[in-house]
Amino acid sequence: MNTVVPVILCGGSGTRLWPRSRATKPKPFLPLVGDSTLFEATVARCGDPVRFAAPVVVTGTAHLAHVEAQLHGVAGAQVIVEPSARNTAAAIALAALRLPEEAIMLVCPSDHHIGDPQAFAAAAAAAARLAEKDWLVSFGIEAKAPETGFGYLHRGEAIGEGGFKVARFVEKPDLARAEQFLADGGYAWNGGIFAFKVATFLAELGAHRPAILAAAREAVAKGGEDGQRFHPDSVAFARIDSESVDYAVMENTARAAMVPADMAWSDIGNWQALHVALDRDGMGNATRGPVELVDCRNVLVDSDGRNVAVIGLEDVIVVVDGDDVLVTTAAGAQKVGKLHRAANQ
Amino acid sequence: MNTVVPVILCGGSGTRLWPRSRATKPKPFLPLVGDSTLFEATVARCGDPVRFAAPVVVTGTAHLAHVEAQLHGVAGAQVIVEPSARNTAAAIALAALRLPEEAIMLVCPSDHHIGDPQAFAAAAAAAARLAEKDWLVSFGIEAKAPETGFGYLHRGEAIGEGGFKVARFVEKPDLARAEQFLADGGYAWNGGIFAFKVATFLAELGAHRPAILAAAREAVAKGGEDGQRFHPDSVAFARIDSESVDYAVMENTARAAMVPADMAWSDIGNWQALHVALDRDGMGNATRGPVELVDCRNVLVDSDGRNVAVIGLEDVIVVVDGDDVLVTTAAGAQKVGKLHRAANQ
Repeated sequence: MNTVVPVILCGGSGTRLWPRSRATKPKPFLPLVGDSTLFEATVARCGDPVRFAAPVVVTGTAHLAHVEAQLHGVAGAQVIVEPSARNTAAAIALAALRLPEEAIMLVCPSDHHIGDPQAFAAAAAAAARLAEKDWLVSFGIEAKAPETGFGYLHRGEAIGEGGFKVARFVEKPDLARAEQFLADGGYAWNGGIFAFKVATFLAELGAHRPAILAAAREAVAKGGEDGQRFHPDSVAFARIDSESVDYAVMENTARAAMVPADMAWSDIGNWQALHVALDRDGMGNATRGPVELVDCRNVLVDSDGRNVAVIGLEDVIVVVDGDDVLVTTAAGAQKVGKLHRAANQ
Repeated sequence: MNTVVPVILCGGSGTRLWPRSRATKPKPFLPLVGDSTLFEATVARCGDPVRFAAPVVVTGTAHLAHVEAQLHGVAGAQVIVEPSARNTAAAIALAALRLPEEAIMLVCPSDHHIGDPQAFAAAAAAAARLAEKDWLVSFGIEAKAPETGFGYLHRGEAIGEGGFKVARFVEKPDLARAEQFLADGGYAWNGGIFAFKVATFLAELGAHRPAILAAAREAVAKGGEDGQRFHPDSVAFARIDSESVDYAVMENTARAAMVPADMAWSDIGNWQALHVALDRDGMGNATRGPVELVDCRNVLVDSDGRNVAVIGLEDVIVVVDGDDVLVTTAAGAQKVGKLHRAANQ
């Protein structure tokens, strides 16, 4: 089998984990679950040299220092520095154009948590085998709840290796449809993890978005290396339409496939999602830092070092970071990104 | 009528308003309601020179610096510095022994809030007139709830000036009895505010606690002045039994009286009591400092300057002070003093 190259995407910032996540220290680079950051854990999951080649990281200038510090000198890593943000189709195209045509890319967002790395490795191996056969493979993450914040993959016919054709891509549904999907059982979450053969991906991108491919080719051809960094040409890159790989390629190709993955995945999309991903005590509480709880249930307290005492609360999240304190219900966690302070940090 | 001398008691520390109240900055000296501290407000309530002489403050060495700073140079004030804490019978005896026999003492704790100073002034005037007639007068604070944390005064026969004999002093009742008292209407809270003629108080103290009077006399006789400060002799003072004035005098004298007082009084006994005493917005919320509330009702946030955002909560109190953060339900506010951090500050 050909080499599997992890392609790790580090974009975006997000305000939904304020006050811990900030413009200067965004979510992938924080130790939200355990001692590793989400980025470090993503690199580590693809760190077995028997299965994986050195990673290609695609990021922007704003995050470059974090990326390089948290790569901890991984041998052979390449960092593609995007001059501006152009969504995932462009980022993956850049990585593909820097790799051999026969390589298998395993595209991984760096702001998700995966609680079961062995299940991830098994799904990655199955996805790579299907990518060898020129399938464009999404990880179909087992839906655990009627989430309305994710896209869904509708499973089609089996194609071997434990994989399936994708019968249909479904945009974020309303709650009633999400509940139908969950009851149906034939739907999975689209978590943005993919396996592609480079040549196949580029062929499909060229077929459905020739302008993106052409501009990405020019950006790479006119780009320059600087040690482990690669800088695409900024003028050519700026011409690329900002489109997700789902929208540009996956929803158009006849070769879309999926492998089921039940791997304790979470996008850690807000503080409540983080609470669910963390180890909790018998009362459902999870704490970090010097915290005293009295008569609490299902409470998450994350302190950067200040003393926090919580009395009598249930389903509440308390976060202390620097000069900022957040106290929210579990349900209110969805509104954190809209706080004035979070939006204008 | 004789001069009315405010006798302001500043003792104790307390942990129930942690983290704002601390051993180094106890409750009387904090601006908990409005911009004045409870001590400043107590001095100001007795500041009308037509009605009141300069105050006598009784405090300990630990609080002396706060007292002198917050007296703001009130002319003629005297500060009695207790060498150790001996409860209210001793503190009032010291003040009495430093005053003319015909003076009327108005004894005021300095850690309570009174929302209606005019009602206080009216009750004080009535109490002073009864004290002239050798009654030992308690303020009977109109009971607004079946509180189990206060003693109660049972109203007896009317004695003129709007006052009544005290039929009975009742120790802190259980909830069922407190509810009976509230329904009965003949019971009032004992808030520890008194009016006594000096000679009458000393005579009653001598009759019921001669040892306390004798030791206090010796402590004053052997004490020394130092500017506005008076230092009782520490050896004699240390011999005094630690008793409340209620227990030592009021429950024993045949001259116990009360004047009803409906003056928006609160002992600010915990954070929930403070919340009730504060001005609140239409949703019942009260905030101090840079605070953002979303979907909150009956929330109190008191921040020393850090940014606090609260989402979706009801009947919750958030306090930020220095390196300490408290989050509690209204009901949980009663447990604050038992937090490890509060008890071991």
